[in-house]
Amino acid sequence: MSRIITIGREFGSGGRELARYIAEILSIAYYDREIITEISKRTSLSEKYIQNVAEHKPVIPFPIHTGRTFWAVIPDYGQDVQKEQHDIIREIAGKSDCLIVGRGADYILRDEKPYRIFVYSDDESKLRRCRENSSNDYAKGEEMTDKELSKRIEQINKARADYYEFYTGQKWGGKSNYDLCVNTSRVTDLRKIAQAIASMC
Amino acid sequence: MSRIITIGREFGSGGRELARYIAEILSIAYYDREIITEISKRTSLSEKYIQNVAEHKPVIPFPIHTGRTFWAVIPDYGQDVQKEQHDIIREIAGKSDCLIVGRGADYILRDEKPYRIFVYSDDESKLRRCRENSSNDYAKGEEMTDKELSKRIEQINKARADYYEFYTGQKWGGKSNYDLCVNTSRVTDLRKIAQAIASMC
Repeated sequence: MSRIITIGREFGSGGRELARYIAEILSIAYYDREIITEISKRTSLSEKYIQNVAEHKPVIPFPIHTGRTFWAVIPDYGQDVQKEQHDIIREIAGKSDCLIVGRGADYILRDEKPYRIFVYSDDESKLRRCRENSSNDYAKGEEMTDKELSKRIEQINKARADYYEFYTGQKWGGKSNYDLCVNTSRVTDLRKIAQAIASMC
Repeated sequence: MSRIITIGREFGSGGRELARYIAEILSIAYYDREIITEISKRTSLSEKYIQNVAEHKPVIPFPIHTGRTFWAVIPDYGQDVQKEQHDIIREIAGKSDCLIVGRGADYILRDEKPYRIFVYSDDESKLRRCRENSSNDYAKGEEMTDKELSKRIEQINKARADYYEFYTGQKWGGKSNYDLCVNTSRVTDLRKIAQAIASMC
C-alpha cells in the first residue's frame, strides 16, 4: 500500500511551503494545483473555473419564485468537478507514495489511512507570511491595508472551511480529524520542522 | 533563558509516557507528580489532598442557608495549593531547561514562550492504552467493563478540562493554545515520535 500524506492548511500559515519540503525530504510525489490541471484536461473546463469550483462549496442561488413554488439550482458543473476531483485523488493515491495538499483528500482517502496533517497559525503571523511571500497573489495588492489583507485572509479561510465541511461533514481543522496539527506562528525555519514531521509520517 | 516544554495530555493518550521520552532524549528535567510532592513538603498538607485540589477546580459547596441569606464557601486550602503550585512552576522553569506535564504550565509560563504540546487520542485507543498500562491505577479495576472504564476516562478528562479552563480562561486542547497537537490513536511506537518531536521543540 502506498504511503499517503495529506495536508490541510490555513491560508497564510506556510502550510503549502511546508508540504513541499516534506515531499522533497521523503522524495514522494506532490500534488496541489496539479489536480486542477488534470481535471481541466479531462473536462475541457478552464483551470480558473475549476479552481473556483473546487475551492468553494456549490453555491445555491437565491430560490426562484415561479408563483407557485420555490426551488434551488445547483450548477451541474460543480458536481462534475467534484466527482472528477475524487476520482483523480483516488487514482494518484493508488499509483505511488504521495503528498496531497487540500481538496479534502484526508476524507476522500480515509479508508487508506493517510497520515493527516493540519497546519495553522495566528492572525499576526498569517499577515506577516502573506506580505513576505512575493509569489503570493494576495500579497501583491500592496495598496491593501493590514486590515483589508487580514479580512481577505479570513474570507479565504472561511471558504476553505465551508468547502471542507460541506463535502466531508467534518470540522475543518478539528484536531480529532488529524494525526498532527502544527502551529507555525512561532516557526522561523519551516524546512527544519519539515524534517521532523517527515520522520513521523 | 531556559528551554521550556509544556505538555498537556488527555488521560489515556500516552501523553505522560511520551513526555518522559522527550525529556530523556533532550536530557532535560522532567516534572509531573514531583511538583505535587514539593508542594506537599512546603505546605505540610497530605499529597493525596493536594493531588485532589490540584486536579480539580475549587468546588463551591452547596450554599449554606442561614435563614436570612445564602453564601458559598471556597476552601482556603485550594487557593493556597494553587499559589504554591504557580510559584514552584515558575521556580523550576527559571532553574534549568525542563519539561512540565499538565498543571496549566503552558499558561502560567506564557511570558517565557514555552514550546506547548497537547497529546490526545480517540476513545478506543484511550481504552486500549489504559488496559495495557499496568502501572495505571485505573486499569487495575479489572472488574470494570469497557463501558465503565470509558466513562471513568471521560470523567478524568472532563475534570482536567474544567481545571484548565477555570484557571486559564482558555480552552483545554484548543489548538490555538499549542504549538503542536499530537494524536496518538494510530501511534504504535511513542519513542519514535518522541524523537521527532524533540527535534522540533
